[in-house]
Amino acid sequence: MIPRDHPRYRSLVIRERIADAALKGIVAMEGVGAHGRGEAFDYLIGEKTTESALLAEKTAAALFLSAKKPVISVNGNTAALAAQEIADLQEATGAAVEVNLFHRTEKRVEKITALLEEEGVEVLKGKFERLLPLSHDRALCLRDGIYTCDVILVPLEDGDRCSALSAMGKTVIAIDLNPLSRTAKSASLTIVDELTRALPNITGSCSHLKGEEIEKLIRDIDNKYFLRSAVKEIMGNLADAMD
Amino acid sequence: MIPRDHPRYRSLVIRERIADAALKGIVAMEGVGAHGRGEAFDYLIGEKTTESALLAEKTAAALFLSAKKPVISVNGNTAALAAQEIADLQEATGAAVEVNLFHRTEKRVEKITALLEEEGVEVLKGKFERLLPLSHDRALCLRDGIYTCDVILVPLEDGDRCSALSAMGKTVIAIDLNPLSRTAKSASLTIVDELTRALPNITGSCSHLKGEEIEKLIRDIDNKYFLRSAVKEIMGNLADAMD
Repeated sequence: MIPRDHPRYRSLVIRERIADAALKGIVAMEGVGAHGRGEAFDYLIGEKTTESALLAEKTAAALFLSAKKPVISVNGNTAALAAQEIADLQEATGAAVEVNLFHRTEKRVEKITALLEEEGVEVLKGKFERLLPLSHDRALCLRDGIYTCDVILVPLEDGDRCSALSAMGKTVIAIDLNPLSRTAKSASLTIVDELTRALPNITGSCSHLKGEEIEKLIRDIDNKYFLRSAVKEIMGNLADAMD
Repeated sequence: MIPRDHPRYRSLVIRERIADAALKGIVAMEGVGAHGRGEAFDYLIGEKTTESALLAEKTAAALFLSAKKPVISVNGNTAALAAQEIADLQEATGAAVEVNLFHRTEKRVEKITALLEEEGVEVLKGKFERLLPLSHDRALCLRDGIYTCDVILVPLEDGDRCSALSAMGKTVIAIDLNPLSRTAKSASLTIVDELTRALPNITGSCSHLKGEEIEKLIRDIDNKYFLRSAVKEIMGNLADAMD
């Protein structure tokens, strides 16, 4: 048991959730390592939502609200950490939720779908086809989901896939704690924040954003600004830690 | 298969080795996440041995050469990544090698011992007693090994244990890629470098360091300098990445 007053309680609880989900076959072994990388960046960011990340989350809400066909792509780590938050975001946006795995097995797709449905997520189903410009099973997606969406949220996504989605002309919203990653650089909008902090902020903004504000947020999107702000935040924290 | 010309080939091969070792029960699930955190810091350090890390490695060799009773503490991640390099360091220094696990089970101790022995390491054995100032099984060590050593190398060690060893008056050499960690701060000497790069450098220095040079290296130890240098390296890399 992790004591509640531990200064890094939240991070440690989330770490345990990932390890449990790996033992249950929901998270791939590679996902456990990827979570560790994210943890390190979150530690450097200060384990908090920065001002610029909050603006990115508000902007993500604007993109969802103006989308014709929004999709949320969910992998094992996302399902393990934030099934409830995905359900809330789906309710606020009406987005389709598609299970899309990098280390894909039918068994994992089933387990993740069941976990999401338990939390009230409506999971898109159908025949997976090789429609993405990627090799092997990484090309698999649903024609009526990711393939034809206009706006897609990819929490914790691999760089190749994020680039492929961007190349297909989609507006890609990434959640990635590493502001230097290929995912962060190739997305239309990158939220440099931890998943379970980021999702409720997007959901929250959906209920109070109005027409003009939505348009302005979308017009002003400058992904490089978000990435530079995150790097500056990390550098500031490193400089403070040296004192 | 990871293509040999991939810019991050080495890091990806090492990542696979950790995942394989986790499936075999050598590395704990927590070790997979910890490896991911290390990877993120190595990425920020530039996946290379910095000048200051090389000096720390040379200094570690000096500490080994002047020790009366040196010990190398080996956990699951260390055994999975560097059993051969541990064998070489043992040969160069005559240090005892003790298996010491944070997530301890008898089965894992046996598996790790077998893996080390396969690579030619002579593993210290005996009756594990609760001799360290730590709770539960984390206090376990060998009386003739860690308990009575004067110099101890702890690659990839937890902060509580590193502090406990320091509090016992031992000279603790840590290998840790996070220059801000409690381990890095509480060790007598911290090598901020990746394990499989660091160990051969220590071993290499053992064969050519001479009396006076050894004394000077030990006299000049300034762990804060090594930590600050690593932080500065990371900040420089971040600044470059923003351009």
